[in-house]
Amino acid sequence: MIDFPYLDQVVQKADSKIVMLVVDGLGGAPRPDIRLSELESARIPYLDRLAGESACGLTTPVLPGIAPGSGPGHLALFGYDPLRYLVGRGVLEALGAGVEMRDGDVAARGNFCTVDGEGRIMDRRAGRIPSRESEPLCQLLDRIQVDGADLSVHHVKDYRFVLRMRGRGLSDRLTETDPQKLGATPLPVRPLEPVAAQAAQVANAFAERAAVVLKGQPRANMVLLRGWSLLPRLPSMAERYRMKLAAVAAYPMYRGLTSLAGMDVLPTGATFADEVRTLREHYEEYDFFYIHYKPADAAGEDGDFAAKVRALEQLDEHIPSLLELAANVLLVCGDHATPAIVAGHSWHPVPFLLHSRLTVGEGVERFSERACAQGSLGQIPATSVMFLALAHAGRLVKFGA
Amino acid sequence: MIDFPYLDQVVQKADSKIVMLVVDGLGGAPRPDIRLSELESARIPYLDRLAGESACGLTTPVLPGIAPGSGPGHLALFGYDPLRYLVGRGVLEALGAGVEMRDGDVAARGNFCTVDGEGRIMDRRAGRIPSRESEPLCQLLDRIQVDGADLSVHHVKDYRFVLRMRGRGLSDRLTETDPQKLGATPLPVRPLEPVAAQAAQVANAFAERAAVVLKGQPRANMVLLRGWSLLPRLPSMAERYRMKLAAVAAYPMYRGLTSLAGMDVLPTGATFADEVRTLREHYEEYDFFYIHYKPADAAGEDGDFAAKVRALEQLDEHIPSLLELAANVLLVCGDHATPAIVAGHSWHPVPFLLHSRLTVGEGVERFSERACAQGSLGQIPATSVMFLALAHAGRLVKFGA
Repeated sequence: MIDFPYLDQVVQKADSKIVMLVVDGLGGAPRPDIRLSELESARIPYLDRLAGESACGLTTPVLPGIAPGSGPGHLALFGYDPLRYLVGRGVLEALGAGVEMRDGDVAARGNFCTVDGEGRIMDRRAGRIPSRESEPLCQLLDRIQVDGADLSVHHVKDYRFVLRMRGRGLSDRLTETDPQKLGATPLPVRPLEPVAAQAAQVANAFAERAAVVLKGQPRANMVLLRGWSLLPRLPSMAERYRMKLAAVAAYPMYRGLTSLAGMDVLPTGATFADEVRTLREHYEEYDFFYIHYKPADAAGEDGDFAAKVRALEQLDEHIPSLLELAANVLLVCGDHATPAIVAGHSWHPVPFLLHSRLTVGEGVERFSERACAQGSLGQIPATSVMFLALAHAGRLVKFGA
Repeated sequence: MIDFPYLDQVVQKADSKIVMLVVDGLGGAPRPDIRLSELESARIPYLDRLAGESACGLTTPVLPGIAPGSGPGHLALFGYDPLRYLVGRGVLEALGAGVEMRDGDVAARGNFCTVDGEGRIMDRRAGRIPSRESEPLCQLLDRIQVDGADLSVHHVKDYRFVLRMRGRGLSDRLTETDPQKLGATPLPVRPLEPVAAQAAQVANAFAERAAVVLKGQPRANMVLLRGWSLLPRLPSMAERYRMKLAAVAAYPMYRGLTSLAGMDVLPTGATFADEVRTLREHYEEYDFFYIHYKPADAAGEDGDFAAKVRALEQLDEHIPSLLELAANVLLVCGDHATPAIVAGHSWHPVPFLLHSRLTVGEGVERFSERACAQGSLGQIPATSVMFLALAHAGRLVKFGA
């Protein structure tokens, strides 16, 4: 894990630009019948050629065997120890839903559920009611006001919503109300530390009022609250690395996460072509760009090998536009692997390439798990990626005399 | 080194089985004249084929350059930080001799020695007296009773025995009685901390009584006591990994060590074929099996290259029986290297393969040090082996949202 306490002694400003392309779920694994991974099966001539002109390696997001969520996967690439900086489930749900979160805010994941006449849970997801039913209910819940904090309720999807508590001295050291079984009544929120007493009171008051507001609803007549979390305080990348950073990502969660990390989040469109255009338009304004490509992860999550291959091939077509920018350092990396044969995030090391004028000639033949394992960068923790980027961009001076 | 404080958040139970074959002293090094290692010289078609269908890598037991004993070598494979969980020399000697050790027991390695009329040491090993002479003397020593603790003396081999102290509040923070030179008298045991005063008193009382009991013996007329150690408290693997674990090992030391770690130690015979049979007989009862193969280490310790090659070839014949079990994850790993050219434990990274339905196609051509260095798992700390095993067995959920 990253642990270099002298960073402020070696970071310097420079007239150089870094572009970090994060391909969500980039890494894969061989499909047993063909013994080739998604990257190995894909026709990705631009990425292959780029690998040949770059320094390559594999990154381990957290630890061997540990499959990270998007939070730890991204934070590691940004140089944060993912074991130290945790983004809670409530906050991540809020960021993903585009809910504005400020320092001191506490967020919870909310579920609508169905309870019987005695308040016992009959369905923990309220029959998975669709958004057209749940959205008006969220608006009703959003009107609930209680003493001790400002509350807001934000619809996410189907039976899911976010409860945001805003106020002074709120803590997230709270128990969840979901008993995780049918036939039991929702639990009261208990403070796990004395300092959380106020937040617990607010949460319980909300749950009581929600029961009243939802009474009589056929399915969504109660709520369950989980994943209480405070907005984490991340040291700003802008200060830490003395750069001006911009994030280009269509999905709200990555926009929220990069904003937390001290990047300016640029307005952009829904497609990767839109993102590339946004980057180009703002290219002169920033030192560092994060740009996010989502489809590879989505296809991997679905267990759809062919779709992931296509997603990688579609990404490949955009590589020339990124190269045209002629950044001093271009990184192609992933927050974690999402092999189709796992159909989910996995622990596999993730291919990584770093292109700069200092790396021409270090490359491997192809951009794949197997080829990058033979690359000049070896297997490194993902937390080392930022250091390598800064070094190749002339932004780190010698450590020690 | 392993340091993942969120393990309890990600470990889940699953209906899957893991078999961990630990080949003691598995790793080797090229013999200068042929430039091939033991594994590279051996005819091991089953292991080679298995490597081709597995994910391969090299494990570093402790740190580069550090040759581990069997204790740290095994503990690392079981996922314990070998720098944090230490098994003292006395305890290891006791476990190796099959001495029953309970929480709070302190063990010491004992040597018979020869002293002159003034009590000065003339031979620190009593002329290496054979077991037929030393065993009856151990029985005499075993009868010694002193205030403050229950004592027992257990014969090990030749001039060596184990002294076990059992009582309340005993400490192992004690100095050794061996002055490590001839012509000096045995030292008294001193407490290194006030809390060890009682244990020191017991130890000194034992040494005094032993001198009386052994007076008049021609060679073994005194004892030296070293390596005081308390039974370490290891977090149980059963709790930590939420599995039911069984150990299949013929040698007492490995039986003792795995018992400490929370495994059920199965009765088994003296040969590896016996061990495999035992594993098969109990296959339905456990989630995880540790099975131990000793001969490779013994041959390496002897500096006998050809014997080590044979030991590996003999192991290879058992691989099909292990594969027949069709465990979800089969690991072939080693606690450390024992290259014949070193004639002892060494620091060399140890070949490692992980076979599962998720790893088909990741493999290398052969199971050897050189080939595994090119494997998809790269060079990893041995403490990562358990995480990888759990991940491939579907026993770890995603870390972080």
